[in-house]
Amino acid sequence: MTSPSHTVNFSAPRGFITAFKSDCKETFFPDDPFHKSKDKPLLKLKKKIQYFVPLFEWLPKYNLHLLRYDLLAGITITSLAIPQGISYAKLGDIPPINGLYSSFIPPFVYAIFGSSKHLAVGTVAACSLLISDTIGAKVSPKDDPTLYLHLVFTATFFTGIFQTALGFLRLGILVDFLSHSTITGFMGGTAIIICLQQLKGIFGLKHFTTHTDVVSVLRAVFSHRYEWRWQSAVVGVVFLAFLQFTRFLRQKKPKLFWVSAMAPMVVVVVGCLFVFFAHADKYGIQIVGDLKKGLNPPSIQYLNFDRRYLPVTVQAGLVTGLVALAEGIAIGRSFAILKNEQTDGNKEMIAFGFMNVIGSFTSCYLTTGPFSKTAVNFNAGCRTAMSNIVMGFCMMLTLLFLAPLFSYTPLVALSSIIMSAMLGLINYEEMLHLFKVDKFDFVICMAAFLGVSFISMDVGLILSVGLALLRALLYVARPAACKLGKIPNSTLYRDTEQYPGSTPMQGILVLQLGSPIYFANSTYIRERILRYIQKEQGISDSKSDVIEHLLLDLSGVSSIDMTGIETFVELRRILDAKGIKLAIVNPRIEVLEKMTLAKFTDAIGKESFYLSIEDAIQSARFSLDNKATEESSNDQNVA
Amino acid sequence: MTSPSHTVNFSAPRGFITAFKSDCKETFFPDDPFHKSKDKPLLKLKKKIQYFVPLFEWLPKYNLHLLRYDLLAGITITSLAIPQGISYAKLGDIPPINGLYSSFIPPFVYAIFGSSKHLAVGTVAACSLLISDTIGAKVSPKDDPTLYLHLVFTATFFTGIFQTALGFLRLGILVDFLSHSTITGFMGGTAIIICLQQLKGIFGLKHFTTHTDVVSVLRAVFSHRYEWRWQSAVVGVVFLAFLQFTRFLRQKKPKLFWVSAMAPMVVVVVGCLFVFFAHADKYGIQIVGDLKKGLNPPSIQYLNFDRRYLPVTVQAGLVTGLVALAEGIAIGRSFAILKNEQTDGNKEMIAFGFMNVIGSFTSCYLTTGPFSKTAVNFNAGCRTAMSNIVMGFCMMLTLLFLAPLFSYTPLVALSSIIMSAMLGLINYEEMLHLFKVDKFDFVICMAAFLGVSFISMDVGLILSVGLALLRALLYVARPAACKLGKIPNSTLYRDTEQYPGSTPMQGILVLQLGSPIYFANSTYIRERILRYIQKEQGISDSKSDVIEHLLLDLSGVSSIDMTGIETFVELRRILDAKGIKLAIVNPRIEVLEKMTLAKFTDAIGKESFYLSIEDAIQSARFSLDNKATEESSNDQNVA
Repeated sequence: MTSPSHTVNFSAPRGFITAFKSDCKETFFPDDPFHKSKDKPLLKLKKKIQYFVPLFEWLPKYNLHLLRYDLLAGITITSLAIPQGISYAKLGDIPPINGLYSSFIPPFVYAIFGSSKHLAVGTVAACSLLISDTIGAKVSPKDDPTLYLHLVFTATFFTGIFQTALGFLRLGILVDFLSHSTITGFMGGTAIIICLQQLKGIFGLKHFTTHTDVVSVLRAVFSHRYEWRWQSAVVGVVFLAFLQFTRFLRQKKPKLFWVSAMAPMVVVVVGCLFVFFAHADKYGIQIVGDLKKGLNPPSIQYLNFDRRYLPVTVQAGLVTGLVALAEGIAIGRSFAILKNEQTDGNKEMIAFGFMNVIGSFTSCYLTTGPFSKTAVNFNAGCRTAMSNIVMGFCMMLTLLFLAPLFSYTPLVALSSIIMSAMLGLINYEEMLHLFKVDKFDFVICMAAFLGVSFISMDVGLILSVGLALLRALLYVARPAACKLGKIPNSTLYRDTEQYPGSTPMQGILVLQLGSPIYFANSTYIRERILRYIQKEQGISDSKSDVIEHLLLDLSGVSSIDMTGIETFVELRRILDAKGIKLAIVNPRIEVLEKMTLAKFTDAIGKESFYLSIEDAIQSARFSLDNKATEESSNDQNVA
Repeated sequence: MTSPSHTVNFSAPRGFITAFKSDCKETFFPDDPFHKSKDKPLLKLKKKIQYFVPLFEWLPKYNLHLLRYDLLAGITITSLAIPQGISYAKLGDIPPINGLYSSFIPPFVYAIFGSSKHLAVGTVAACSLLISDTIGAKVSPKDDPTLYLHLVFTATFFTGIFQTALGFLRLGILVDFLSHSTITGFMGGTAIIICLQQLKGIFGLKHFTTHTDVVSVLRAVFSHRYEWRWQSAVVGVVFLAFLQFTRFLRQKKPKLFWVSAMAPMVVVVVGCLFVFFAHADKYGIQIVGDLKKGLNPPSIQYLNFDRRYLPVTVQAGLVTGLVALAEGIAIGRSFAILKNEQTDGNKEMIAFGFMNVIGSFTSCYLTTGPFSKTAVNFNAGCRTAMSNIVMGFCMMLTLLFLAPLFSYTPLVALSSIIMSAMLGLINYEEMLHLFKVDKFDFVICMAAFLGVSFISMDVGLILSVGLALLRALLYVARPAACKLGKIPNSTLYRDTEQYPGSTPMQGILVLQLGSPIYFANSTYIRERILRYIQKEQGISDSKSDVIEHLLLDLSGVSSIDMTGIETFVELRRILDAKGIKLAIVNPRIEVLEKMTLAKFTDAIGKESFYLSIEDAIQSARFSLDNKATEESSNDQNVA
C-alpha cells in the first residue's frame, strides 16, 4: 500500500482544563480585552484602568483643536436633544421636564465610561413607548401620575442593573441573538405605531386609546371625529412638510445635514412664538405647559420596590434594556466601522448600565444611543465623547434659564417632530432586499414588523427572535452534506452538484460534511450518508460500481458531541455489514480530540485517518486494484 | 497575473422555488420515502400502500418457517407482558386489569402499521409514573378512581393524536432534540425514583407520599416505620435476589437469556402459589386482588374533554407521548442497526399514534416499544412483527381464561420485578464515559438525572433539553475559526495549531471558517477575523510582515443569512481601509447563491473568488511580487 506523504496529527489531546479555558475564552471574551498585558505591572494597571474608564485614555491627549469640532457637534445635538427630550417624554406619558433632565446627567456618565467616540446619548422613541405600554398597563399615568413616574424610575434602575450585569458577565452574546432582520422589522413596526400615536397630537384629540396596535389606534382616531381640530391639523401638516423637506435636502446634499439637524429646534421655536403671539392655545392648539427652571432633583428616594409593582417594573426594565442595548451597540458599532475603529460590546453595556442606574437616581428615564442623534453627532464632526459633555453643559444652561420658555411648545409641533423622525426609520429598501435575497430572513423581519404593528411590541419582538432561533436550530439540525467529485486535471475535489464537470471515482464515495455534528443532527447525518450510498448502488447494479470505500471529509466539522460520536460508531457498524470501508479525512482538532477520548480512533484504526482526500483516494484505489488482481488471479486459478 | 487553472462556478443561482423545495425536502423528508417511485402507476400505488401499511409488505412473503421463530418469541414476551402489565398499571395507579388489556389490542395495531421487525409493544414504567404524577396532581386516584381512569384514557387519546400528527407533519425532527445524554440521564433518574416507589410494596406500607422525588419518598418510608412488615420485606428481598441472579446469568451466558425473560413470570407464579397455599395475605402480604375474566370493554364513551381537566390530560398526553416516542424510536432503531435495516421515524410515529388512539378506545393506556421487552423479543429470535400478533393472541387467552388466577399475585412480587427491571436502566458506565469524553454532555446528563431524582420528571427533562439547546446555540454562536499554514512539500493547508509543522505565508493570512454564518455568530466572526489580523501585525512590526492579503476558506460554511452577508460587506470595508485585499476560497453553492443575490459577488469582483487555496495564494504572491518589483524600481528611479 502506498503510504501517504502526510499524516493526521494524533498527538495527545489537550487536557480538559486547557480546552475548557479556551472554550470559555472564545465564548465570553471573544474580544480578548487584555491581550497586550505583557507590560510592566504599573503600565498594566494603567491599561486596565484605561480599559474600564476610557476617559483616561482620550482626555490626556485632548487639545483645543479637537474641542473646536466637539463644541460644534455638541451644540448641534443639543438643538436636537431639547425637542426630542420633550417629545419622547410625552410618548412615555411622563412629564416633559424629565425628558430634558435625561439629556443632562447621562451624557456625562457616558463620556466617562463609554468607548464609542461618535455615540450621542439620549432618549429613544421605541423604549419610551414600550415603558408606557408595560407600566401603563398596571398603573394609569393619568390617574396616578406620581406613582407612574416613580415606577418609570424603578424600571430605569432595573434596566441599568441588568445592563451592567450583562456587561460584567460578558454576555454581549445575548445582543447577537437580535438579528439584522429582527431589528429592521422591529424598528419599522415601532415607527408605524409611533406615527399613528401622533395622530392624537396632530388632530388635537383629548380622548385616545391606551393600546398601541394599528387597529385600536385607527378605531380611536376615527371614533372621536367630533374632537378633531382643523387648526391643529393644519399646523401639524405644515410642520411635517417642513421637516420632511429638510430631510429630503440632506439626502440630496449631505453637506446640508445641519439644516435637518436644526429643523426640529426651529419647529419648536416657531411653534412657541406662534402660540405666544397668536394666542393659538385658545383656538384648540394644545401646549406642553408647566416647565420649571432648575436642575434634576434627586429621585433615589422614589425607587419603588413594592411587591405589587415589581413584576411590571422588572419586565419593563429587562425588555427596554435589551432593546436599548441592541440599538445603542449596533449604532455605536456601525459608526465605528465607518471610521475603522472597534467598539467593545461588553464595555458599552457597562457604560449604558451605569448611565441608567445613575439616571434613575437623578430623575432621568431610560437613555441609550439613539440612531438619529448619533448620526447628527457624527456628521457634525465630533471627534471624542467630549461632544456629549458639551451637550450636557448646554442642557444644564437650558434647564437653569430657558426651560420655562419651552412650555409654550404646541403638542402638534412635537407630534410632527416624532412623525418625521419615525418615517425615516421604516426601511422599505432593506425589506425589499431581504425579500430578494433570503425569504426566511424576510419572514423573520415581517414577524417583527406585523407583530409590533398589529399585536404589541413585545409579542412582535418575541415572535421574531423565536423564529430566528428556530431557524438557527434548523440550520444545525439539517446540515448540508454533499458528494464530491474530482475536478479534471487537478487534485481538487468539489461538490458534484455545484461543479457538474467534476467526476466521481469508481467504487469510492467521497462525502463532505459541514457544521457541528451533535444530537440534533446526528441521526439525520447518518441517514443522509446511507441514502447517498443507497442512491449510488441504485444507479447501476453492475458489480463494478458497487461502493467499497466511503471517505468522509470532516474539514468543515467544527465540533462534535457524544451523540455525534455514537453515530459514527453506528455508521461504521452498518458500513461493516455492507462491506464498505470507512475513512476519515482531515478532522479538526476539537473533533479528533473527542474521537480519541471516545476510543473511536482506536476502533477504526489510525490508518483510516487521512490528511487529504487525495491520500485517502490513492490508498482506496490501491486496495481496490489489489483486490481486482487477486480476484483475476483466483479466476485464472479456477480456470 | 497567473490565471488559476480552475475557477469558481458562478452559473445562475437556483430559483427560489427550487432552493425552497430542496430545503423543505431535506428538513421534513430526509428519509426520502418515495425515492423509487419511477414505476408504473399500479406498482406505484402498491408501493405507497405498502409504505403506509407495512403489513402488506411482509405478510405475503410470510411462511411457516418464519412462524416457528415468531411463535417462540411471542410466547416468551407474553410471559414478560403479564407481570409487567400488572406492575406498571399499579405504578400508574390504574387497575391492574388495564395493564393486561394494554398488551392485547395495541400489539395487533402495531403489527399492521409498524415498520420495525423487532419491536415488542407494551407499557413502560417511566410513562406510567409520569401519568400518575401529572393526572394524580389534579384528581386523586384513591378518592375518585373512575374519573382518574377516564382521564388516563383521555391522556392516552391525546398522546395518540399528537404522535399521529407528528408523523404526518413529518416532525420526526423533534425526537432528534432528545440527545443521547438527556435520555441516559432521564432513564437513570426515572429508574431511581421508580425503585424508591417500590419500597412501598417491599415494606408493605399502607400510607405513602404522592411525590416522586428522592427526599419526599425516603421521608415517607422512614416516617411510617411502624407500618413496616418484615414478612413482606423478606419475600421481596428473596424475589429480587432471584431476579438479579437471572440477570447476572444472562450477562455471563447470553444464550440463557430465556431464563431471565421467564423469571418475572416465575416470580409471579411462585408468589401466587405461596399466597394461595400459605394464606400469606393474612400475614401482611398485600395482593393484587380482583381481576375479572373477559376482553377489553370499549372505553371510547369515557373520554373526558371537560374544560377543568383538559390542561392536565393534554399535558400528560404530550409529555408522555414525546418520552414514549423517544424510547420507542430509539430502541427500534438500535435493533434495526444490529440487523442492518432502516426504520422510518415518521412512520413509526404514525404507528405508535394509531396504537394509542385505538388503545384509548378499548380500555388500554399508553403503550410504546419498551427496551426490556424488545430486547427479549430480539434475543428470542423474532423475525417479523408476527411475534406481536402471537403475544396478542396469548394475552387474549389469558384474559379469557387465566386472569382471575393472577389476583393472588403479591404486590411485593410486582415491586421486586419493577425494581429489578429498573436497576438495569441505570447506566453508570455510560455516565462515566460521558464524563471522560465530554464534560458538557455529562452536565446535560446530570441535569436530567438529578432533576428527575430530586425535583420531578418534567423539570428534569426540560432542564436537560434546555441545556442541550443552549449548547447547540453556543456551538453556532461561537464557531471555530483557525489559521492555516502550508504543510511543507505539499499543496495542503492545515490548522497551524493542530499541525505545528505547517508554515504561514509572508504577507498572506489564510483563515478557515466552519459552521453556518448567521446573525448569532456574524459579529463574533468579524471580530475574530480582525483579532487574527491584529495579532499577526502585532507579532512583528517590520514592514515585510504586514498582512496584505486575507484569504477566507469557506469550504466548511454550509449556509449564510442576511446578517452574515452584511458582515462580509462590513469586513471588506474595514479591510479596504487597512489596505488588505480580501479573497474568498471555495464557497459552497448555498453561500455563493446568496452572495450573488445580495450583490456581494459583484462588489468584491468575481476575480476575488478562488476554487482552491493554492490558486488564491499564487495570485496573491504574484501581486505581492509585482508590488515589490515596482517599489524597488521606484527606489532605483529615486536613486
